[in-house]
Amino acid sequence: MFPMMPAYWRLSARVWKLAEAGQIFSLEEFQSRSARLQAAMEKIGCDALLLTSPTDIFYVTGFLTRFWESPTRPWFVIVPSNRDPIAIIPSIGAEPMGRTWLSDIRLWNAPDPEDDGVTLLADTIYECVPEHGRVGLPMGLETHLRMPLSDYARLTSLIGNRSFTDATAAIQGVRAIKSEQEIARIRKSCAVADRAFARLPEFVSAGDGLDAVFRQFQAVLLSEGADWVSYLAGGAGLAGYGDVISAASRQELQMDDVLMLDTGAVCDGYFCDFDRNFAIGSAPQHSKTAYATLYAATEIALDGLKPGMRASDAHRLLHSAISSRGMRPLAGRLGHGLGISLTEWPSFTAKDHTVLEEGMVLTIEPGVEIAKGCIMVHEENIVLRADSCELLSTRASAELPVIC
Amino acid sequence: MFPMMPAYWRLSARVWKLAEAGQIFSLEEFQSRSARLQAAMEKIGCDALLLTSPTDIFYVTGFLTRFWESPTRPWFVIVPSNRDPIAIIPSIGAEPMGRTWLSDIRLWNAPDPEDDGVTLLADTIYECVPEHGRVGLPMGLETHLRMPLSDYARLTSLIGNRSFTDATAAIQGVRAIKSEQEIARIRKSCAVADRAFARLPEFVSAGDGLDAVFRQFQAVLLSEGADWVSYLAGGAGLAGYGDVISAASRQELQMDDVLMLDTGAVCDGYFCDFDRNFAIGSAPQHSKTAYATLYAATEIALDGLKPGMRASDAHRLLHSAISSRGMRPLAGRLGHGLGISLTEWPSFTAKDHTVLEEGMVLTIEPGVEIAKGCIMVHEENIVLRADSCELLSTRASAELPVIC
Repeated sequence: MFPMMPAYWRLSARVWKLAEAGQIFSLEEFQSRSARLQAAMEKIGCDALLLTSPTDIFYVTGFLTRFWESPTRPWFVIVPSNRDPIAIIPSIGAEPMGRTWLSDIRLWNAPDPEDDGVTLLADTIYECVPEHGRVGLPMGLETHLRMPLSDYARLTSLIGNRSFTDATAAIQGVRAIKSEQEIARIRKSCAVADRAFARLPEFVSAGDGLDAVFRQFQAVLLSEGADWVSYLAGGAGLAGYGDVISAASRQELQMDDVLMLDTGAVCDGYFCDFDRNFAIGSAPQHSKTAYATLYAATEIALDGLKPGMRASDAHRLLHSAISSRGMRPLAGRLGHGLGISLTEWPSFTAKDHTVLEEGMVLTIEPGVEIAKGCIMVHEENIVLRADSCELLSTRASAELPVIC
Repeated sequence: MFPMMPAYWRLSARVWKLAEAGQIFSLEEFQSRSARLQAAMEKIGCDALLLTSPTDIFYVTGFLTRFWESPTRPWFVIVPSNRDPIAIIPSIGAEPMGRTWLSDIRLWNAPDPEDDGVTLLADTIYECVPEHGRVGLPMGLETHLRMPLSDYARLTSLIGNRSFTDATAAIQGVRAIKSEQEIARIRKSCAVADRAFARLPEFVSAGDGLDAVFRQFQAVLLSEGADWVSYLAGGAGLAGYGDVISAASRQELQMDDVLMLDTGAVCDGYFCDFDRNFAIGSAPQHSKTAYATLYAATEIALDGLKPGMRASDAHRLLHSAISSRGMRPLAGRLGHGLGISLTEWPSFTAKDHTVLEEGMVLTIEPGVEIAKGCIMVHEENIVLRADSCELLSTRASAELPVIC
């Protein structure tokens, strides 16, 4: 009834060739990630991990798609303790998951209101986890379960005497230490943003709408090599701005404004996350002072951060660098991890005592409150080496740049 | 110790003016949404709703940010049965949430590893929900709880004899019927994509890398007015492509290829979601046949879809239109809801018996399997009116367009 394509085999061969070309990381990289997760699982007494988030699944499999934007379907990866990961996914993803290093891919036709992969997932857990065994799941800070809560309840009842346990620390501990292959991708994203920021004065001037500036900056990021731009926030105002997370308004840039753009451009699935400030027309003294304070605080962190310090030490370093200069540090974190997500753990806050380790990619992000509802922030991306910070972003200029 | 900015009041006034300019919807729109949710809650016996997802929170509050890209912090909105919604959010969002219609905004300094808003949320639930009362939460198909699972467990223990219950149908039922203000935003996003697709032949030709095409197409979407481009997938191959969700590879377009791009561009927080196919150089007969089949199936759905039909009826209509022409319909859904998310409920599958209603914005998305690993898809966006489909995308050309 359905005619076969005469070109079928030729097509297949091409898809295969593409598959190889499209791989972002080596097989050894994925085997190493998997082995490190298995070692971490063993330490906490887990027989398998269940992963449901875009970032965890990309990390383990290399499966890269923007289809996560659709909340319709859940996707599952099981990392058993003694064999390669298993994907249990909607059949719409069979082709691209088939191009990853995984060989065990189990499919169902989603969305299925009667059983959206839950039985298939439970069967896989039965197969990989012994009786009374434990399945690790990210349950802690900075994690979400990306499947319906009612399906999770059903799954829990289906797996018999096996149980779920929190594996947040195990997974985050592995993902926080980046391989050189990962660092190269983040460096690439940072370089894209560097080039785009350098071009900003070409197309921004007083009178421009912030929404138009945001659109054009995203287009420049793409033209400089970003695969996509998952994040752009910013603001503008006299001396500072009201917040750092807003989408663009139709506000027009005015003389003496400070414009800040903060971007998460993505290359090969990895983010940069840094911002830049620009004075429009001229830089009033209060803007220069705030900027100089942030620049100095960042210098202190770039010189001072070392493996073995804690995230809370980094926070103290930045906080005191700002307050000792007579300005008020922003409440909230002053830096964080970076990688497959725009923001990762740890957090530079007074309460996060995570030990900083060699290979962590981090943002240094001091901020000051200039007045109520008026702040300024400054951000660089680094990788922590054995005895120093290596910049991944090109260091911001020491003085607030002016766009004339 | 901390000097105040002399320009503080002037700044404040400007921020306020912006706030008004930045509002996407009228106050009445939000009051109506809230009232409809309250009516739906009453039907299922809920005393409040707890919302945690970007889409539900934007729907109720108008809070629009790309900061959701950071998984670090949870955000909560409570919709009580008898008063305006309450936001319980990280203080980093105080300014932009303060520009919405909400007046009751409760803040904590996130991320806090000891208590990331859970106590504050529990206190709010205590205040809004009587003893033995029920809090509705989306738990079903196409939903996720966007907060850590361990915090949800702690919250459950903190709210005493109040309990959580599934409110998926209530919330989805309200959100599925779009207001004219919402339809106008989706129409705007569709028009942006229409104009970008029309410009595609200007910059695409045989020999181009698919990754370069993807970058340029995103830039064109921005230049045509998209606020951002949250989704772009596609593929190219002889007669068809392997899947519809892949990110771009470095594959080069070849003569006789079919190129498909499927985009979710966003304006004012609302998506379009449709694709277009193009033949590179020339269109082989098998490509023309597949395209004609998809075009005809879409025509049948555009003529035939009416309120009162079920999602499964729409599936049957499209499925039989394809198979009666001797081609194999894709497994999986052949259309779906659309709005604040790239994909929303219902799903045009054999198993989804949701009744289609006036005001639903839907995609009509037939697909054929031309050969194993080779498919073609076609998609339009519509709003269902009292007795017809109104196209929001400009109808694709009746014949597969050729880029020479």
